[in-house]
Amino acid sequence: MAYELYYWDGLQGRGEFVRLALEEAQAPYVDIARGSEDDGQGQSAMMALMGSKTEPFIPFAPPFLKDGDLTVPQTANILLYLGPKLGLAPDGDLRYVVHGLQLTIADMVTEAHDTHHPIASGQYYEEQKDAAKARASDFLAHRLPKFMGYFERVLAQNPRGDRHLVGATLTYADLSMFQLIEGLRYAFPRATARFASHYPRLAALRDAVAARPNVAGYLASDRRLPFNETGIFRHYPELDTRAH
Amino acid sequence: MAYELYYWDGLQGRGEFVRLALEEAQAPYVDIARGSEDDGQGQSAMMALMGSKTEPFIPFAPPFLKDGDLTVPQTANILLYLGPKLGLAPDGDLRYVVHGLQLTIADMVTEAHDTHHPIASGQYYEEQKDAAKARASDFLAHRLPKFMGYFERVLAQNPRGDRHLVGATLTYADLSMFQLIEGLRYAFPRATARFASHYPRLAALRDAVAARPNVAGYLASDRRLPFNETGIFRHYPELDTRAH
Repeated sequence: MAYELYYWDGLQGRGEFVRLALEEAQAPYVDIARGSEDDGQGQSAMMALMGSKTEPFIPFAPPFLKDGDLTVPQTANILLYLGPKLGLAPDGDLRYVVHGLQLTIADMVTEAHDTHHPIASGQYYEEQKDAAKARASDFLAHRLPKFMGYFERVLAQNPRGDRHLVGATLTYADLSMFQLIEGLRYAFPRATARFASHYPRLAALRDAVAARPNVAGYLASDRRLPFNETGIFRHYPELDTRAH
Repeated sequence: MAYELYYWDGLQGRGEFVRLALEEAQAPYVDIARGSEDDGQGQSAMMALMGSKTEPFIPFAPPFLKDGDLTVPQTANILLYLGPKLGLAPDGDLRYVVHGLQLTIADMVTEAHDTHHPIASGQYYEEQKDAAKARASDFLAHRLPKFMGYFERVLAQNPRGDRHLVGATLTYADLSMFQLIEGLRYAFPRATARFASHYPRLAALRDAVAARPNVAGYLASDRRLPFNETGIFRHYPELDTRAH
């Protein structure tokens, strides 16, 4: 049975981290909120499940995954669940290493989001533009180098080589790292202009993921929505101020 | 062998979610950063491990847990790892339900932190006070009711009864929910004055956790540091403006 992925239509958002894993593994899945209401899908089906008064296990927010009767919420948790099934997670205790990296990626994704919404996620960017400039400036000056310096070290210190974050084969964390780098380069082209010289191993990982046939096929398909200013990674030139 | 918990001394912080699980289960553990440098412990031991150029699996930030050779980073990941070992997680796929709730608790913890640090985690609160007032106001008006309304629904819709978030027995998510509620009540006593009438099931869960003998013993011990203004949950009266 196909996995059912629930996430907002119209943007990549956090759903994209799950999509990349499903697409790399060529796993059958239905992107419910992008489906037709005639098929019992669409955004209203997602909202109905979230608002249900009878479901035993309700999610706080998209994305969430349905696999039969099980509903798995939270991006990193979905990848934890799917990893072994899709061949994208190591056996044994190394899975906690991969998951720890995924949660650190998730922390950086939240901080990237908060560069344009530092005050109120329910208000427009334009209503919090001054605070956004201050937060984006701090993010680019301090947080981005701290996170990316860390991830570069993880690659450098991987005892199995620097081609993957953990072990000698692809994991879902590698796929998510690709997406994080893509998003940051979309949002902050000026500030990340020298990304590859600062973080050569991460840049090589990004290129290697992009070149994988299933990923490349997905990126060229119409299932891959373009980045846009309703997603997590938004390009507002006034926030992209500092080359470093 | 005792678990080794690594977290900043002097505050509860994110380490407290791990401590509560270890204390409830009466598991042997060493709080490394609170130990003596004469024993190879203390904060310098924690920093050395984080800055190591040779460790294969380095954490981005505290808390992290060492269990023999394995280093497990990220609060929710540590609880995922410890849960089955401490008898604080269900078997089978329900563990993904518990973990999903833990990650949603973690999201709210981050938002609670950002009420006093909305612009730059590396700067003082006093340097971002105006933005903090705006963010705290939005948090109390919108985010706290959204999160807590959700968690109350989770209890109400638990098919095994409303005494636990998942299943019919205590999990680490119940312990973390206690800590989250305690923290919010410390930080925002005015805004949460009517917490128990708005969220009766959550209030009952908080009370039940506090009354557990091992938790009560821990809370009365000197291992439980008091909340203070270096932690995640900080009481700044000027941010605690809105009763709801």
